[in-house]
Amino acid sequence: MNQRPLILISNDDGHEAKGLQALVDVAKEFGEVVVVVPDGPRSASSHAITMNTPLRLKLYRTDEDGTRYYRSNGMPSDCVKLGLKVILKDRKPDLIATGINHGSNSSASVLYSGTMGAAMEGSVENHPAIGFSLLDYAPNADFSAAQVYVRKIIGKVLANKIPDFTALNVNIPKAPLEEIKGVRITRQALGYWHEELIERTDPYGGKYYWLSGWLENNDLAEDTCEWALQHNYVSVQPVHHDLTAHQHIKKIKFLEE
Amino acid sequence: MNQRPLILISNDDGHEAKGLQALVDVAKEFGEVVVVVPDGPRSASSHAITMNTPLRLKLYRTDEDGTRYYRSNGMPSDCVKLGLKVILKDRKPDLIATGINHGSNSSASVLYSGTMGAAMEGSVENHPAIGFSLLDYAPNADFSAAQVYVRKIIGKVLANKIPDFTALNVNIPKAPLEEIKGVRITRQALGYWHEELIERTDPYGGKYYWLSGWLENNDLAEDTCEWALQHNYVSVQPVHHDLTAHQHIKKIKFLEE
Repeated sequence: MNQRPLILISNDDGHEAKGLQALVDVAKEFGEVVVVVPDGPRSASSHAITMNTPLRLKLYRTDEDGTRYYRSNGMPSDCVKLGLKVILKDRKPDLIATGINHGSNSSASVLYSGTMGAAMEGSVENHPAIGFSLLDYAPNADFSAAQVYVRKIIGKVLANKIPDFTALNVNIPKAPLEEIKGVRITRQALGYWHEELIERTDPYGGKYYWLSGWLENNDLAEDTCEWALQHNYVSVQPVHHDLTAHQHIKKIKFLEE
Repeated sequence: MNQRPLILISNDDGHEAKGLQALVDVAKEFGEVVVVVPDGPRSASSHAITMNTPLRLKLYRTDEDGTRYYRSNGMPSDCVKLGLKVILKDRKPDLIATGINHGSNSSASVLYSGTMGAAMEGSVENHPAIGFSLLDYAPNADFSAAQVYVRKIIGKVLANKIPDFTALNVNIPKAPLEEIKGVRITRQALGYWHEELIERTDPYGGKYYWLSGWLENNDLAEDTCEWALQHNYVSVQPVHHDLTAHQHIKKIKFLEE
């Protein structure tokens, strides 16, 4: 095995996102990179997959160093499946990296995030996986400080082992590099999205709604992602796909009677 | 509070699904029912929500007893949000029930399931929530045995308390009532979907792929959902929205260095 590491990259912001290139540029320093991303924005697509529509896959760019970029009409999770089962069917990637997302995926956002959905598509099959997010939704966000931490974390994850069946949810503060204090391993703050459905009327008299809202979080202990980000630390949270509330199994035994 | 319980119902199979009516008919025995469902199939939509498209909401049916049925162009999670924040904004439901899904949502399917995505949309805001699934994908599946267990479980959940911030993932075997042995409280079997991407060629020479696959599961201990279902028990699994792999936090402390 003298091969350089193979890194499969996806995202949920689509093939034109600036954050994608920011991730690809760092990943190339470590190995061979293959990109498979949606052909447009798929924010908040979670683990959604496409069963009733045929999936298309198009090689849309090849760099001079041979890096191939594919895009698909599918969801982020579909892209990872296409990457693993079609494009890389003869070689298991050493890492699946997603992002860099334009915007936070901390707290309850991990549930809705396509960036983390795509990363977990890897970890559920026991590929090491990392989803990267910068706390800046702007299309022209500055990823230069984020890249420093992406480099550090990819390097360490490739050099060491992370636990089996685990993805890392990495959120990076929107701050100049010198203000970022380092990395904290965190747990998910148990907040939720407090939605607002903004009602409008179309030119023909029909009502419609825009989904909007804000993260409501009262879980601000020092070990949470939210605390870390508010204090300008990079938050790294290990996530798994076991949704069982093990602590509650005994409490609902009355349903067996 | 002499009001009858209020039950908000959604699903991911859409407004025409037979399983929806099977759930509504049982729920009506317990209280006032409001239905908000997608206007077509949204299987495997997970927690996806709709941010870039306006959401429409249409009252498409009212029963003689006053039960209102709404449909939306959104995802199952959008439907629950519309139910909670638009239709029921003046009264908190006593229960959110989703399904009855045509097909299993056991093991790793809970990640992808729109039925469970919708249920967890409730539990993340601390509404008691249950997602019901029958292990039969057929559009004309027989829900009569399932209804017996839906009745039993809704009754007990309304009469007792389930833990805060918890949804129940209920999977019901495809079997005649007399062959179903009862209810088991279970944990999620840690299987995964082994995908196949079936390649085809369109009449114009373009390639496309159908996502297909099967559940690969070697986690068959007696406390799992898969064991229960294989032995003709109804599987009831408490699920929560904390994706943190707490057991791995110490193992990745090297990333802080």
